Amino acid sequence: MKARVTVTLKNGVLDPQGKAIEGSLSALGFAGIAGVRQGKVFDLELAAQSADEAKQEITKMCEQLLANTVIENYSIDILK
Amino acid sequence: MKARVTVTLKNGVLDPQGKAIEGSLSALGFAGIAGVRQGKVFDLELAAQSADEAKQEITKMCEQLLANTVIENYSIDILK
Repeated sequence: MKARVTVTLKNGVLDPQGKAIEGSLSALGFAGIAGVRQGKVFDLELAAQSADEAKQEITKMCEQLLANTVIENYSIDILK
Repeated sequence: MKARVTVTLKNGVLDPQGKAIEGSLSALGFAGIAGVRQGKVFDLELAAQSADEAKQEITKMCEQLLANTVIENYSIDILK
């Protein structure tokens, strides 16, 4: 089963990397950019009987390793 | 307008970071993981008249800065 985990910074958490990208885009001539936030994406392939089981397992992975839940949110999409 | 750009490594490109995460997940006791690939996600907020215009503008950003098109694919989702 394939799944995609998207990890993004919570609102209010400073994102210097995003700010740097925003500055670079402006420097390249792109106008009207109000904000850039960078996050991470993990494409997982795992053995699971059902989508529910996969989601449960991946939630555990996020809590333990993939996301820092103090400052990050995560969302899980089961692809197939 | 809000948009999300997802940048992932092309198939065949080695992903040592993904491999390390795969190893860590196994070490934590998660079984049956066949693969992990890590990518990046950018949440952009920009001024644009229409979704089409935004998509065109973001495609240029991806080609010039956000993605290394030699080894990475990108996909653009206009959120609203």
